[in-house]
Amino acid sequence: MNQVRVGAIGCGYWGPNLIRNFMELPTSKLVAIADKKPERLQQAKTWYPGLKVTANYEDLFKMNLDAVVIATPPATHFEIARQCLLNGLNVLVEKPLTLDSRHSEELIHIAEMNDRILMVGHTFEYNPAVLMLKQIIDRGEIGDVYYVDMVRANLGLFQRRLNVLWDLAPHDLSIILHLLGEMPTSISAHGGDCVLRGVQDIVYMHLSFPNNVIVHIQSSWLSPRKIRRTTVVGSQKMVVYDDIEEERIKIYDKGVNPPAYTETLEEFHWSYRNGDVVTPHINFTEPLRAECQHFIESIINHTTPRTDGCNGLRVVQLLEAAERSLHNGGTPEYLTSTLDVAAVGD
Amino acid sequence: MNQVRVGAIGCGYWGPNLIRNFMELPTSKLVAIADKKPERLQQAKTWYPGLKVTANYEDLFKMNLDAVVIATPPATHFEIARQCLLNGLNVLVEKPLTLDSRHSEELIHIAEMNDRILMVGHTFEYNPAVLMLKQIIDRGEIGDVYYVDMVRANLGLFQRRLNVLWDLAPHDLSIILHLLGEMPTSISAHGGDCVLRGVQDIVYMHLSFPNNVIVHIQSSWLSPRKIRRTTVVGSQKMVVYDDIEEERIKIYDKGVNPPAYTETLEEFHWSYRNGDVVTPHINFTEPLRAECQHFIESIINHTTPRTDGCNGLRVVQLLEAAERSLHNGGTPEYLTSTLDVAAVGD
Amino acid sequence: MNQVRVGAIGCGYWGPNLIRNFMELPTSKLVAIADKKPERLQQAKTWYPGLKVTANYEDLFKMNLDAVVIATPPATHFEIARQCLLNGLNVLVEKPLTLDSRHSEELIHIAEMNDRILMVGHTFEYNPAVLMLKQIIDRGEIGDVYYVDMVRANLGLFQRRLNVLWDLAPHDLSIILHLLGEMPTSISAHGGDCVLRGVQDIVYMHLSFPNNVIVHIQSSWLSPRKIRRTTVVGSQKMVVYDDIEEERIKIYDKGVNPPAYTETLEEFHWSYRNGDVVTPHINFTEPLRAECQHFIESIINHTTPRTDGCNGLRVVQLLEAAERSLHNGGTPEYLTSTLDVAAVGD
Amino acid sequence: MNQVRVGAIGCGYWGPNLIRNFMELPTSKLVAIADKKPERLQQAKTWYPGLKVTANYEDLFKMNLDAVVIATPPATHFEIARQCLLNGLNVLVEKPLTLDSRHSEELIHIAEMNDRILMVGHTFEYNPAVLMLKQIIDRGEIGDVYYVDMVRANLGLFQRRLNVLWDLAPHDLSIILHLLGEMPTSISAHGGDCVLRGVQDIVYMHLSFPNNVIVHIQSSWLSPRKIRRTTVVGSQKMVVYDDIEEERIKIYDKGVNPPAYTETLEEFHWSYRNGDVVTPHINFTEPLRAECQHFIESIINHTTPRTDGCNGLRVVQLLEAAERSLHNGGTPEYLTSTLDVAAVGD
Repeated sequence: MNQVRVGAIGCGYWGPNLIRNFMELPTSKLVAIADKKPERLQQAKTWYPGLKVTANYEDLFKMNLDAVVIATPPATHFEIARQCLLNGLNVLVEKPLTLDSRHSEELIHIAEMNDRILMVGHTFEYNPAVLMLKQIIDRGEIGDVYYVDMVRANLGLFQRRLNVLWDLAPHDLSIILHLLGEMPTSISAHGGDCVLRGVQDIVYMHLSFPNNVIVHIQSSWLSPRKIRRTTVVGSQKMVVYDDIEEERIKIYDKGVNPPAYTETLEEFHWSYRNGDVVTPHINFTEPLRAECQHFIESIINHTTPRTDGCNGLRVVQLLEAAERSLHNGGTPEYLTSTLDVAAVGD
Repeated sequence: MNQVRVGAIGCGYWGPNLIRNFMELPTSKLVAIADKKPERLQQAKTWYPGLKVTANYEDLFKMNLDAVVIATPPATHFEIARQCLLNGLNVLVEKPLTLDSRHSEELIHIAEMNDRILMVGHTFEYNPAVLMLKQIIDRGEIGDVYYVDMVRANLGLFQRRLNVLWDLAPHDLSIILHLLGEMPTSISAHGGDCVLRGVQDIVYMHLSFPNNVIVHIQSSWLSPRKIRRTTVVGSQKMVVYDDIEEERIKIYDKGVNPPAYTETLEEFHWSYRNGDVVTPHINFTEPLRAECQHFIESIINHTTPRTDGCNGLRVVQLLEAAERSLHNGGTPEYLTSTLDVAAVGD
Repeated sequence: MNQVRVGAIGCGYWGPNLIRNFMELPTSKLVAIADKKPERLQQAKTWYPGLKVTANYEDLFKMNLDAVVIATPPATHFEIARQCLLNGLNVLVEKPLTLDSRHSEELIHIAEMNDRILMVGHTFEYNPAVLMLKQIIDRGEIGDVYYVDMVRANLGLFQRRLNVLWDLAPHDLSIILHLLGEMPTSISAHGGDCVLRGVQDIVYMHLSFPNNVIVHIQSSWLSPRKIRRTTVVGSQKMVVYDDIEEERIKIYDKGVNPPAYTETLEEFHWSYRNGDVVTPHINFTEPLRAECQHFIESIINHTTPRTDGCNGLRVVQLLEAAERSLHNGGTPEYLTSTLDVAAVGD
Repeated sequence: MNQVRVGAIGCGYWGPNLIRNFMELPTSKLVAIADKKPERLQQAKTWYPGLKVTANYEDLFKMNLDAVVIATPPATHFEIARQCLLNGLNVLVEKPLTLDSRHSEELIHIAEMNDRILMVGHTFEYNPAVLMLKQIIDRGEIGDVYYVDMVRANLGLFQRRLNVLWDLAPHDLSIILHLLGEMPTSISAHGGDCVLRGVQDIVYMHLSFPNNVIVHIQSSWLSPRKIRRTTVVGSQKMVVYDDIEEERIKIYDKGVNPPAYTETLEEFHWSYRNGDVVTPHINFTEPLRAECQHFIESIINHTTPRTDGCNGLRVVQLLEAAERSLHNGGTPEYLTSTLDVAAVGD
């Protein structure tokens, strides 16, 4: 295989970035795009005159492609991905993988049956700052993880059918599963549908993980400031990862130690640690570039991608559980282990 | 009455600030302090050699005082305040008023029976930035309030018996009741007891208010950064009040308008507003000074203070409801109107 | 003229941005590029397969072009621009126009003789924030301008033959001439050649303008932080324009009023004003796009561009004066009015 | 000597801080204050009823004092300090020591003749952040110092007779002499008298030190923001000390290395280093407390204080040279070694 021949389905907000990356990678070549909107096809032609374009994605099946990347509205992910897999293509789908976990499971099954790669575009798992954050946790530098607080907020972009949960939270859920390496045991979600009744534009999610680790995620389309911040508090140190700041990761040598004897003392003294703050240098490269490259390499080497279908499924399962809690006034949803990881395994 | 004669009970972390303020107000004079710790009394004597000091607060009852301010550990508030009121003193109690709402009700009752002032030290209701924020909301500048997000976090101060809810959340609850002027209909709370089992050091609270207004409060003793931030999102504008920033209040002329017709359009366009940001100048004066002055004036003029016993009771009721939800895994607690305001009225 | 046919000479650091903009403007078409480095030409071909490329810029003279944009090393500006003008092309030259003011004058002369447009790429004069800043000054909102403090600093990019003065200061000089609308009467410059002897990497420039307005410009290649900040202090208000902050322009209603009688008072009181801070919304568009569009429109309409040759000449004159002061240990250089504007006028 | 008996002369803006510190130090006791304004004396009595007060500082000479601290207007420093020394008192004078270097020399002489301590209140030399910054430089962590950029700006406080140079620059001059440990070889100063003719409210100072180290100091009373920032750029690392930020000192592992061969290459590549940023934890204590304590210890131990009269003299000499340059349009003033340090030695 000289260059992996890629087609792009959907060329709206995010599509052009995908096109550019597959175009610039030496190991791939973007040869065709499909989009229902003629003006988008025309725009793409002005950038890349050699591209084949079509309004009908099924035309791509006759172009001798190796792979497609799907960046259409989420509601169409399942059907398009299914068709592509059945037509022998390796598939990269934008997040969320599908809007129904059973659909995700079906895609995983079809990909396995047809021996094709199914990958989900959880970009943040290819973000150098997230990877560094995971290293910091894994090498024990911050001690036991106590809690993780995540905020993703900005003004817009509103969508008509999906609430903010399905739009913004997939990022944080994929990050937290990557960081902690396990599924939560329960989820509660509260939210508000401020602007358009029935479509939540602000959601707060609370997740309980094994070992008393708690995670809180705020997703908002209605914020005066753009915020992309993850705070990891551990028993030894604390880390703030802010995707907007120039100093993306800051490690605080701060903590509190409980007193040795708490029972007998009338008044007891905690010892606080307040040490240096370190901003490690991050060799930042475009996460989407790494993601596209990983997809191509998985095809060439015939290996399972890091963000495979199961990875995508788990995030969809969490979104579904959060959605149920949201509609039950915040009552916690308990996740059984069979529900989440086992269903994916075979 | 020339100068209101005040005694201070409790001279630990916060007490010296109270002493200084009552000392410097022209309308009051701090004449005595009571504290169980001899070193604190001694310290106070070095600042104010003329002070009477005692280890036993009941000694204050024989000193011809008009009022006392109680800044002892919260668990002792009820008993001390009760004794003071019964001995004819006007009483200012630090927040939270008591640890049990029935105790708050009893104090309110005793104060009424004895025709004495009962005031709670909800300092933020005397903070010029909070007062300005309320004006901004009340004059309709931000339109309908959609949601309010509040964060109060820092490293420590841990307490042995109280969790972070009872330590930090009273501030935010008193602020939000002040801003919205009504009680929530339900509360959910989630938290973690990271450092010491059984004592929550991180709590997330979700409150539903009438008219679909939602409020979220984060209280944390385990944060790498000190945060004191309230974000009010309205249908017309958004406001951030940050008590740590020099620009305490920023008004963002930002918002989103839903499209006129949402049913028939396949893809529809929201219009976003992105206008000026205004930082109004605040004539900032010490909130505690204003609080102490208000207490003294309420005594002199025989008027009900703004943060009276009922005000204190409402916050305690909310803390109790949050505590119940916290212990039920976040299940919402519904507040009946009889429970909260009515119980106070007669 | 359907579309203005543009050629680009030099395709290094800045060139690709110029190419993209002339490519995307509906009124222009970039048809050819010249660069001595084959790899750059090859790279450009991968983006725009239809482009003609050549290592020799004189080849462009046979391609029926209307205009060229020159983004080669500054030392080559004069000779290339001269050839292009003499060959009948309209010319946009990157800043600084030339390294010698007599060369700038000669280019101006040749352009006039040949009735061609000569424009210099002072991008900041097309920056919406700079334009707004000028409006704020011109409408008298800040009163009389007292002083302007400008800082442009970052780590690198070092150049071999030019010092930081010629690299970074042209931006600030073009901004300040635009804002104040007149030339300074004197310039002093101090600097250091920290990394490479003989090439200043840090320069401080002090300019005196008519009406006691003073301007200070710091240019640094050796700064731990990237800074792009202009502070304009007026008798009524103060403005900070920070090109890196999201809130690019902040207007401070701050000032000081001298006391009415200063002679007779032993101690006198200044009155300080401390009012609101306003961040006006800026409809930010890419300055380079506006610059390219202005160049094309000047050609089509046969009008003098805002940043014409004289504009470029004035900045070069100031750089020369600063350079002289720099080499005389900071001794002020006085600018005679005949030297600067008059030489350009006829 | 049980406790050093201290008197305070001048109880205006800064005086109360001095009084409080000498009152709270266990090794000293503030027994009397002198101030011409009755209301200040009265105010001081309300805080410390046991204080002796007088309008005439000469009364202090009869009170069996060991030392005085002088915080009167700078123009009076010389005469008051002289009287105090001649009356056998150890003397701490606020900065600047005097307004004339010959007066400083005379005070130094008198102190030596009378075997008394003469100390100047260069508070920043007792600031833990400045001390840490000096350690960072001295242990070679940042390599050779290339340049130091200092900014001290705010709105006000204007003074009637002194310009901003004499008000704010003493801080930066004392810091830089402390950091570099030597005197500059030349000074240039430029400024503006924006609000009141003849009284500079904005001054830029450029200092050349041995070994090509350059220092730039901006002093401004007319700034929309309060700034207290020192940037030290070295050959290995760069440090920003910001006295307003919570993270007072940040060490940037950044730099640039010149290419090995610069002669023969047409285009050559600098290598930039971009490493971690470290914010060392500073055990911050009140600088004024450390200063007062050092004064008392110098008296008790009969040792020369770190900020002795010669230290104060050097700052005055630099201010005088800057003032001369300021009045000569920025022409550099060259400092001869005999002028500065030698004059002090004998």
